[in-house]
Amino acid sequence: MREHLIIIKVGGQIVEEESSLRTLLKDFSRIAGGKILVHGGGKSATALAEKLGIETKIVDGRRITDADTLKVTTMVYAGLVNKNIVAGLQALGNNAIGLSGADLDIIRAVKRPVGAIDYGYVGDINWVNAQALSELIDTGAVPVIAPITHDGKGSLLNTNADTIASELARTLCGKYELRLIFCFEKQGVLMNEADEKSIIPEIDPVLFEELKAEGVISGGMIPKLESGFNALRRGVKEVVVTNAQGISGGLRGTRLVL
Amino acid sequence: MREHLIIIKVGGQIVEEESSLRTLLKDFSRIAGGKILVHGGGKSATALAEKLGIETKIVDGRRITDADTLKVTTMVYAGLVNKNIVAGLQALGNNAIGLSGADLDIIRAVKRPVGAIDYGYVGDINWVNAQALSELIDTGAVPVIAPITHDGKGSLLNTNADTIASELARTLCGKYELRLIFCFEKQGVLMNEADEKSIIPEIDPVLFEELKAEGVISGGMIPKLESGFNALRRGVKEVVVTNAQGISGGLRGTRLVL
Repeated sequence: MREHLIIIKVGGQIVEEESSLRTLLKDFSRIAGGKILVHGGGKSATALAEKLGIETKIVDGRRITDADTLKVTTMVYAGLVNKNIVAGLQALGNNAIGLSGADLDIIRAVKRPVGAIDYGYVGDINWVNAQALSELIDTGAVPVIAPITHDGKGSLLNTNADTIASELARTLCGKYELRLIFCFEKQGVLMNEADEKSIIPEIDPVLFEELKAEGVISGGMIPKLESGFNALRRGVKEVVVTNAQGISGGLRGTRLVL
Repeated sequence: MREHLIIIKVGGQIVEEESSLRTLLKDFSRIAGGKILVHGGGKSATALAEKLGIETKIVDGRRITDADTLKVTTMVYAGLVNKNIVAGLQALGNNAIGLSGADLDIIRAVKRPVGAIDYGYVGDINWVNAQALSELIDTGAVPVIAPITHDGKGSLLNTNADTIASELARTLCGKYELRLIFCFEKQGVLMNEADEKSIIPEIDPVLFEELKAEGVISGGMIPKLESGFNALRRGVKEVVVTNAQGISGGLRGTRLVL
């Protein structure tokens, strides 16, 4: 039987506010077996950029990344947010190791070609180093991954954390029985954004298209779910969208199914 | 025969200016065998703090680190500087991995007690995880270490990079035949600061005391050399103070001897 691996992506305010981060790390630290935490940090990056007088432009949930913005995201994601999570997990007995895609060459990406929009230093993943990651996991280490990749030619690139989590899942599900959890502020994908209890328990690709057409699913949730369906098609066992409390319990929230 | 390990500490403008960093990384990448790079980043941290309106206070070469300064140093050292070095080394074929002391719990420190001066979130090292580091090195990975440690209770701490390099050397020289190189702007310790050629080829503890008394050695060079002598006393094979060019050649510069 293959070993289990759980990949949890946390973003939004969860990782950026002291109290919610502590709760998340406690829940995460109690998960037994192989696990990877992928985090965002967008709100802190936007706040730092603002203090530095750097304008933030976000198109379809993706940050336009000029040279100064790349510096800001590298500092916030791979520095501040990543190392605080790692120190917090170490205090809870998890042997965390913070990684960007450049470290041990774990995630290589190519700078997105300029089309209708020039995203700047944004990277689309073209290779995940499954061997390096599984060697770390098999020693009991807990990778904590910041959404910064590299191109193998010396340049860092900003890469969406949802995409990183999905690509890691797709690549590692050849070796592990893999669950992928997208963790955010809400308890799941909501039918009605104003009603926290209107969680849609299950979404398949047909319902996904309907909900997109109706405008129930929009913005950054669209690429998140698309990457989740792609992960399922590649052999990931389970994909769930839930809130921070969902990771310690029985995976409440919204389950993606094919 | 024990394997060789070289620990190179680079600081000052070398790691913070694009052109000198490229040269350094080229030279460093050509060193065969086990190696660790420990870096600073103080000038960038000071520049970022200034932009954010955070006052920088440095006493005897040590940065007073309040909560905001800790955030700045974590972002700059463990984020910006560390990941740029790692990406640069990966492009040169070195399998670099960037680490703070929290990652894999490699360097634990205690917050410096408040004495005549309150240094704030500054950590004095009390434990180096030799096993985790040597396991990485033995797989061919190249640790790139930022001067941020942790206390094992969830807090990050700012720790002088010279001290980190010396403590790593002291701890790892039990396993490896170890050379420690402090790399800075000058070709070595100078007899006369205005004369770049007045390099003192060798300093022993007696000469060190004389040069301190005469004011030839002052400021941050004093703790650097003290930690170098301590490393020699603990069994480190060779300690040299030199410039970036020194690492590729035959270790010109100033050699410490007991």
